Amino acid sequence: MTLERLRADIDRIDARILSLLEERMEKAILTRRLKPGTRDPAREAEILARVAARSRCLAREEFTTALYGSILAESRAIQDASPRLVGFQGTHGAYSESAVRAWDPAAAAIPFPEFGQVFDGVRNGSLDFGVVPVENTLGGIVGQVNSILVTTELRVVAAVDLPVAHCLLVAPGQDHREIRTAYSHPQALAQCRRFLERNKLDPVEHFDTAGAARMIAEDRPKGAAAIAGRFAAELYGLEIIKEGIQDAQNNRTRFFVLSREAPEAGGNKCSAVFFTDDKAGALFRVLEVFARSGINLTRIESVPNEPGDYAIFLDFEGSDRDPGVARAVSEASALARDFRMLGCYTEARL
Amino acid sequence: MTLERLRADIDRIDARILSLLEERMEKAILTRRLKPGTRDPAREAEILARVAARSRCLAREEFTTALYGSILAESRAIQDASPRLVGFQGTHGAYSESAVRAWDPAAAAIPFPEFGQVFDGVRNGSLDFGVVPVENTLGGIVGQVNSILVTTELRVVAAVDLPVAHCLLVAPGQDHREIRTAYSHPQALAQCRRFLERNKLDPVEHFDTAGAARMIAEDRPKGAAAIAGRFAAELYGLEIIKEGIQDAQNNRTRFFVLSREAPEAGGNKCSAVFFTDDKAGALFRVLEVFARSGINLTRIESVPNEPGDYAIFLDFEGSDRDPGVARAVSEASALARDFRMLGCYTEARL
Repeated sequence: MTLERLRADIDRIDARILSLLEERMEKAILTRRLKPGTRDPAREAEILARVAARSRCLAREEFTTALYGSILAESRAIQDASPRLVGFQGTHGAYSESAVRAWDPAAAAIPFPEFGQVFDGVRNGSLDFGVVPVENTLGGIVGQVNSILVTTELRVVAAVDLPVAHCLLVAPGQDHREIRTAYSHPQALAQCRRFLERNKLDPVEHFDTAGAARMIAEDRPKGAAAIAGRFAAELYGLEIIKEGIQDAQNNRTRFFVLSREAPEAGGNKCSAVFFTDDKAGALFRVLEVFARSGINLTRIESVPNEPGDYAIFLDFEGSDRDPGVARAVSEASALARDFRMLGCYTEARL
Repeated sequence: MTLERLRADIDRIDARILSLLEERMEKAILTRRLKPGTRDPAREAEILARVAARSRCLAREEFTTALYGSILAESRAIQDASPRLVGFQGTHGAYSESAVRAWDPAAAAIPFPEFGQVFDGVRNGSLDFGVVPVENTLGGIVGQVNSILVTTELRVVAAVDLPVAHCLLVAPGQDHREIRTAYSHPQALAQCRRFLERNKLDPVEHFDTAGAARMIAEDRPKGAAAIAGRFAAELYGLEIIKEGIQDAQNNRTRFFVLSREAPEAGGNKCSAVFFTDDKAGALFRVLEVFARSGINLTRIESVPNEPGDYAIFLDFEGSDRDPGVARAVSEASALARDFRMLGCYTEARL
């Protein structure tokens, strides 16, 4: 057992402790809306008693209970500060989290394994907002998100358009010449295929880009790198060997910010969704309304709903407070089935 | 997401944080003998910088760096206090750890996955002592330990004879009527076979008794119990449904405390190991020496070494400082091959 080996073990332990502390604060802030106040002395006493009982080995009770005193105090402070709670799908360090931070740097970004949990959290009020990817310049639409958007009652209150620059990341101290494998989400691996081939790296699929970065930091598998964003590298203390390794340089992802209510300010861009019957000219007549009104469409996308039935996503410039836009929406609503405005908002392009 | 569910998640996170803090202190104390002093400002600065970089989400940098200030201070304090370091095989809460605590309540008991690591740690000086089980009243000798004892240069400096009372343990709040499975080490499951059958519990093998208790506390699988000792229950905050569930009531395990050097005081019990050739009367003549000298044998055990070759473990009452014992040992050494005293020591029976 060398000093270096023991210190590498300690570094791995610290990475896990920090991840767990973060997760603990997130769970604590989510409890805030489910209880009458921030303080719950009975619950705190129960936690401290359990901590004391557990501290019978090297970590002494005086130390661990004092430490938990600080953890509980910080937990109360965070609950009292009551930041905006914004859910995203993935692991800390995800591109979605970068989108949250681009939209509101002061928000508390809270990760969830599934997109459905983000939508559910906003709907039931445990979250204030959700940030979800809707389309990527290389990968196209994000199917899972768009099929939920077809039926959601949530409103789009902002959009963020973010460049995606994949980085090759390794644990500090990893010899670059010994890297043999690259872990990442299948889509990121596909976007970096030529880079991987040139550098003779075997792609290994992971459920998540940032999750792969975290795994490299916590488990340090031999000869392994991760492909993820710069934010994941900074968060997990990884070394960036090369940035922007995707084969196509114009790689951008567009995110929607969702809320229960429409924004007060109207914005300059609108998203709508509607259904058309499966007959010639049905879609054309809706689009004709917007063309006649001189409204510029920025996105149109058909998403299969039921067999023979399509949901059409339409983005266009303007605000529903413009009389021209309001009139076009009213006319389109008469022609299409279930024409529904998802929201009028401002889009940030970074 | 209910309040109860979030709090159960927080409890699981706390159990993991406490396990990791304990593990961190153990690794830190093991570094002490590999570096010139307790303080290493460069290393501490590196750790705090990494903690700060990692704190970019809900857990703020001011909070995490202050917390790590306390963790590093405690780590230094533990290194300065320099307790006896005693290795054992298994997970915290193991019966072996109860033996360590029975022998020296102030010692730092440090878990290792393998018996070989405990022997190696004592030999190379990273540990002061090792505590290993040698025999169990129901399970017989602990093969892995005895085959290392045949060749080890380490000395037995004490022995501990401990009652083993298996307990059925569940996570707090688990409905007793819903328990379907019991996780534990195969030997513990075998010792509780009739109890499991009577209570219609399916045995599930786990690598370790205390490890099963820890898993129940951290993962809370539905309808699952663990079989482990009372100490494991206290450590992991589990509820003891029933204590002493083993089928045979006289269940005891005997442990050796190993060190690099013989104890100063001689004690009242001795252990020796020797080899006999595979021919009639070879063992008999050695035993005859002890019988003639009126020395009471308390254990004899043959362990297969090479094919046709056996190592014989012999325990007897007395001390090698008694002239009668010293004479018998000298005579036996002349008759047996590689007669080696493992140690003379005091045995504690609890």
